[in-house]
Amino acid sequence: MSHIAPIDPPARLLMGPGPISAYPSVLRAMSSPLVGQYDPFMTAAMSETQDLYRRVWSTRNEQTFLVDGTSRAGIEAAITSLVRPGERVLVPVFGRFGHLLAEIAERAMAEVHRIEVEWGQVVPASKIEEAIVRVKPTLLALVQGDTSTTMNQPLDDIGEICRRHGVLFYSDATASLGGNAFEADAWGLDAATAGLQKCLGGPSGSSPITLSERATEVIRSRGRVEAGIREAGDTSAADFVRSNYFDLGMIMDYWGPRRLNHHTEATSMLYAARECASVLLTEGREKVIARHATAGAAMLAGVRGLGLTVFGDVAHKMNNVVAVEIPDGVAGDPARQAMLDDFGIEIGTSFGPLHGRVWRIGTMGYNARRDAVLTTLAALEQVLRRFGASVPTGGGVDAAIDTFREAAA
Amino acid sequence: MSHIAPIDPPARLLMGPGPISAYPSVLRAMSSPLVGQYDPFMTAAMSETQDLYRRVWSTRNEQTFLVDGTSRAGIEAAITSLVRPGERVLVPVFGRFGHLLAEIAERAMAEVHRIEVEWGQVVPASKIEEAIVRVKPTLLALVQGDTSTTMNQPLDDIGEICRRHGVLFYSDATASLGGNAFEADAWGLDAATAGLQKCLGGPSGSSPITLSERATEVIRSRGRVEAGIREAGDTSAADFVRSNYFDLGMIMDYWGPRRLNHHTEATSMLYAARECASVLLTEGREKVIARHATAGAAMLAGVRGLGLTVFGDVAHKMNNVVAVEIPDGVAGDPARQAMLDDFGIEIGTSFGPLHGRVWRIGTMGYNARRDAVLTTLAALEQVLRRFGASVPTGGGVDAAIDTFREAAA
Repeated sequence: MSHIAPIDPPARLLMGPGPISAYPSVLRAMSSPLVGQYDPFMTAAMSETQDLYRRVWSTRNEQTFLVDGTSRAGIEAAITSLVRPGERVLVPVFGRFGHLLAEIAERAMAEVHRIEVEWGQVVPASKIEEAIVRVKPTLLALVQGDTSTTMNQPLDDIGEICRRHGVLFYSDATASLGGNAFEADAWGLDAATAGLQKCLGGPSGSSPITLSERATEVIRSRGRVEAGIREAGDTSAADFVRSNYFDLGMIMDYWGPRRLNHHTEATSMLYAARECASVLLTEGREKVIARHATAGAAMLAGVRGLGLTVFGDVAHKMNNVVAVEIPDGVAGDPARQAMLDDFGIEIGTSFGPLHGRVWRIGTMGYNARRDAVLTTLAALEQVLRRFGASVPTGGGVDAAIDTFREAAA
Repeated sequence: MSHIAPIDPPARLLMGPGPISAYPSVLRAMSSPLVGQYDPFMTAAMSETQDLYRRVWSTRNEQTFLVDGTSRAGIEAAITSLVRPGERVLVPVFGRFGHLLAEIAERAMAEVHRIEVEWGQVVPASKIEEAIVRVKPTLLALVQGDTSTTMNQPLDDIGEICRRHGVLFYSDATASLGGNAFEADAWGLDAATAGLQKCLGGPSGSSPITLSERATEVIRSRGRVEAGIREAGDTSAADFVRSNYFDLGMIMDYWGPRRLNHHTEATSMLYAARECASVLLTEGREKVIARHATAGAAMLAGVRGLGLTVFGDVAHKMNNVVAVEIPDGVAGDPARQAMLDDFGIEIGTSFGPLHGRVWRIGTMGYNARRDAVLTTLAALEQVLRRFGASVPTGGGVDAAIDTFREAAA
């Protein structure tokens, strides 16, 4: 017999690149009682969640559901199910998560072709089309928002290019969905994946996905029902997906009318995902994106008001995160630690070439709020000064307040 | 703007083969606020959870952690990371989940050899050793508790056999862990996986795993750090794991002292997994197993007291689930539906050769309780009678009460 105290996390205002503080109603939803896997309430909640995410993605795709795992589970499910070993995948890389898509495609035994631009830039559509013509890929895998650089890759011209060249178009919108425009159908996406832990304001652990009819056909052509529940008439394709967990064909059969047993849906995460969509749609999708735009603009004005230099092509920045150069002479990690220890505020470090060079500050989901932005800037001013930077008194908060005032006018 | 009501599940007593009703404290833990991925509180909670699961598994394995996904995510991670394409895997099959292990190994491009026994039996150790000698597999993949048949495969002799023949020994204990004996070290396991949604009394969506040093060495020999976070000195093995999400080498680097970024740990599910272990260890592991043994024995006596015939080799039944033959003339699915509609109690249907032939009734986790057993038997008596079966009045509850009384004596 031993006593283990209940989990009791410290007060945190999560203003990094994600995960961020969840909406309170999302946390409450997760403490709802469980029901059985095929309880009519459960299957209805699954179907309702599919409907809600069709509205989040702006799609009429029948195949819109959740993959049970973190956002990279959705990425791997999409790539592994859409690409056969040996097929070509084109990955434009403009930050860490482009490398991740390429990595996942390599592990799926695809022939991966990368095109790269400098971190802090997005990839011009012309450069993507040129590479498509050269590489003739089966799939274009393109990150929308890459938190490693804060860039928001324009997608609106890409679907038409892919369609013209007979290429499947997949985008990972983990970092961007809900805080920036995303139009799955209007932009011609064949597949898109996300996570809850950024602008959707939930915990990591469930990955929304949507698939076009074209993508669904590819997946269906590789269909295989697993041994143990296979019935007469179920055949197995020779080029079946080399994963059971990520075989989207079987996951579709579980979410669809056949309700064929696959995994046991993660009930509490389903409740969370449903509530994330509910918060977004109840406030209004466009209003939530506008709230992210305003909070992001205020944070951008605020860090500039504190005299900080912003990294990257600001015209293509995501609404929900900004990268700022750590001022000369300021010790980056100890200063971040002081934000956490003295104010309970988390801001983010960076990966790869930006590590030690920039901090990343997020304004997303529940924390795309005026008080969260102003509190962060007030604390950052104090910390910067105590770490030896020369900072305009009140410069951050004043600039942010002006931005919020203009947005409200 | 639209109104979407908060999730509001109906009252359910989940007495099927799982998922089952979660412990209330596990539900509460999931509504705790989130913290950042590298917050000292988060990394400490991850390390603490590893310690707790070492005690749950009865192991000193350093590599004891969670895979973010449902229980089959843990299975796929174990098999995919331990077995190279073309290597031989031996899978003894005594129910649906043996077929699942074989299926997952086939998808991982292993050469899979099955040995099968009739559903309702377990596999004799001699038969396993004979097949090991014949097949010379790299890995033996053996389910401990298969809910499809309720059987609890004895594992205590198998580790020694595997060691003697140089075979890695992996077992999936999803259905059994926490409600039946499991001794990872004493039984010589190299890998074991589970889920929260059975005897551990939590929601589906997190898969505890433990790996011996021998298993860890195999995984390390296939190491590859993903592009985008790779550093000088990180090499990539030629036979790297053909999945990013399930590459246990990278997941170990994330849970271990290097804290190398992989997925973003599913914070709320971590809280849930931690609390599941906490409930078990606070009550006492042996006491919880004894509670499952008593509740299971009472349910067994109760269904027999109602005149029902029990399926399978009862001497090898798991503590936490019993399969009963549906009496002649009783419509199985409508009767189950009446249990749900009239009493809010869920009992389970069956898969494959048992579908339409048996119901499966669970007593696990929070619901391995006297009142849950007696209430289920009282309701089942009513339903059986209304569906035309001849049932001894009070026969189920009386027999179960006797069993509880004897256990308490």
